Amino acid sequence: MDAVTVETRRKGDVEPLVRLARDDMTVVDALIVERMQSEVPVIPMLADHIVAAGGKRLRPLLTVAAARAVAAPNGMEAPVRLAAAVEFIHTATLLHDDIVDASDLRRGKVAAHLIWGAPSSVLVGDFLFARAFELMVETGQMRALGILAKASSVISEGEVLQLTRAHDLGLDQDTYLQIISAKTAELFAAAAESGAVGAGADETAVQALRDYGQYLGLAFQLADDALDYGGQSEKLGKNTGDDFREGKVTLPLLLAAARTRGHDDGFWERTINKGDRREEDFARARELVVGAGAVGATLDVAWDYADRAKAALEVLPRSEWREALELLADFAVSRAA
Amino acid sequence: MDAVTVETRRKGDVEPLVRLARDDMTVVDALIVERMQSEVPVIPMLADHIVAAGGKRLRPLLTVAAARAVAAPNGMEAPVRLAAAVEFIHTATLLHDDIVDASDLRRGKVAAHLIWGAPSSVLVGDFLFARAFELMVETGQMRALGILAKASSVISEGEVLQLTRAHDLGLDQDTYLQIISAKTAELFAAAAESGAVGAGADETAVQALRDYGQYLGLAFQLADDALDYGGQSEKLGKNTGDDFREGKVTLPLLLAAARTRGHDDGFWERTINKGDRREEDFARARELVVGAGAVGATLDVAWDYADRAKAALEVLPRSEWREALELLADFAVSRAA
Repeated sequence: MDAVTVETRRKGDVEPLVRLARDDMTVVDALIVERMQSEVPVIPMLADHIVAAGGKRLRPLLTVAAARAVAAPNGMEAPVRLAAAVEFIHTATLLHDDIVDASDLRRGKVAAHLIWGAPSSVLVGDFLFARAFELMVETGQMRALGILAKASSVISEGEVLQLTRAHDLGLDQDTYLQIISAKTAELFAAAAESGAVGAGADETAVQALRDYGQYLGLAFQLADDALDYGGQSEKLGKNTGDDFREGKVTLPLLLAAARTRGHDDGFWERTINKGDRREEDFARARELVVGAGAVGATLDVAWDYADRAKAALEVLPRSEWREALELLADFAVSRAA
Repeated sequence: MDAVTVETRRKGDVEPLVRLARDDMTVVDALIVERMQSEVPVIPMLADHIVAAGGKRLRPLLTVAAARAVAAPNGMEAPVRLAAAVEFIHTATLLHDDIVDASDLRRGKVAAHLIWGAPSSVLVGDFLFARAFELMVETGQMRALGILAKASSVISEGEVLQLTRAHDLGLDQDTYLQIISAKTAELFAAAAESGAVGAGADETAVQALRDYGQYLGLAFQLADDALDYGGQSEKLGKNTGDDFREGKVTLPLLLAAARTRGHDDGFWERTINKGDRREEDFARARELVVGAGAVGATLDVAWDYADRAKAALEVLPRSEWREALELLADFAVSRAA
């Protein structure tokens, strides 16, 4: 492999997977729209507001791709339902997180709780969560159900852990990894694992796809946390600074605070531990985080997980799906690098 | 049956069922405590706060009783797990409802969201909901899982309907019944039905127990709504007036507003439709509701459902369990009469 190819692969890409999965995802999207309907008018309105905003639907994509990467011996009927269920679980957690974090924006739109109120967001989240389980029941796949039920409890544990621990600089790196492993990587892992199980994959492939999802999720969240400080590019994205403004301690901040110890303790003490943050503080925080090399160091950890994700796939037969998943692993990080 | 017996039966009682189910409920309680544990400290603390406050655990009692009333041909292993899952679903909805209604008290204790904050209550509710599904998965009973998943989405639809419709006097009686059917009776129905299914009951018994649960739930909620205006006793309970203070339109209020039309429209218009309620207004509202015979009329509807609940049980073999369920149906209403 020559240097140019390495560089190209290292850039990563999500589009090949999106293209491959187009037909399956059309089925998944139709299921999503069908199953978020209700005779109670505010439910489909609120659900549509967040579901239609959409994004790349990475998690259901993973479910579909995992099934296809093992050539779906039992067909795609269960995997597409599981994929829709995964998106519902994800959407439910987004609705609830936005209340927990008092967020203003979600997927570039005004957060649902600011339009319909927090009570409706809580209840519609519950509705989507329940509908997710109804979809899973239809597959008749108890094992896949167990995987996604377990993931759901782990996600909420991760969210509570973040809520109670991630607002002081005493947070250690292990707890940070435990938080992102639970709140983010677990659903990536369960999305891929349940897709493989639902498609009838053998145990080796199921484990490989679970591992892939887990590592991908970690890489994805670490890159997200780096992106919140502008990543490594000069240009600041429109959503930078959210974590800092919420006083959320992530790896870039943890590393920066450690590396600037003795110099900038007062700044971190005031802005994070005392929670006294002003609008101009983020520029200073970003300067310290980038200047301390903490964004780069965070991305190094992310690249390592992307490599592990790709390595996990090696037991699978080569296919365009496997290759697309490899590109996705690099993309998870390269978008921030 | 002589008049004295009729009077005694009409009084109803929950204690016979509680006594019969004592051993099963000890197993259910142990499962509840075991499965609400988590390494994340605030989760068991918050869950224990609401779970330990307990009350009669009516819903899991129903699951256990339904299984026993059909002599549990497949044993009690699945029903006790389903019972614990039912209690977790119920507890999750209580945690979320208290945020939705901004309630101060729950089961006689300070509401969890006032101690640990709304975000923790949202997330621990999600956690308990997920754990409920993990328990169900362990039973291997996909049909029971489907029943409880469906119930969960119906409950949240009922809650949204209540949130969006139950704050103006334009509410019609059908919509009111639709709301309490979804938010309350559905879980009673699913609790009994899943217990019967999990125990291996035949279809006739499954349907009978579902119907029993549904009617019991309606009777129970109607009596609760009557109790909120002090029921038919002279003595006011400590929790009367909650619905009125929240501007929640229930059957007693609906009937009273209709029956006092032309006389007290201004009072209802101000307190309910305009939401301008003062502390002294509840005394006046109660006077109008009781004076218009609306509490009695609500209880008449409740008695009718209690009768239907008992009638549904007639296809089951006579047993001390069936008799205890009959007494429970009367108790659901007699506690308010």
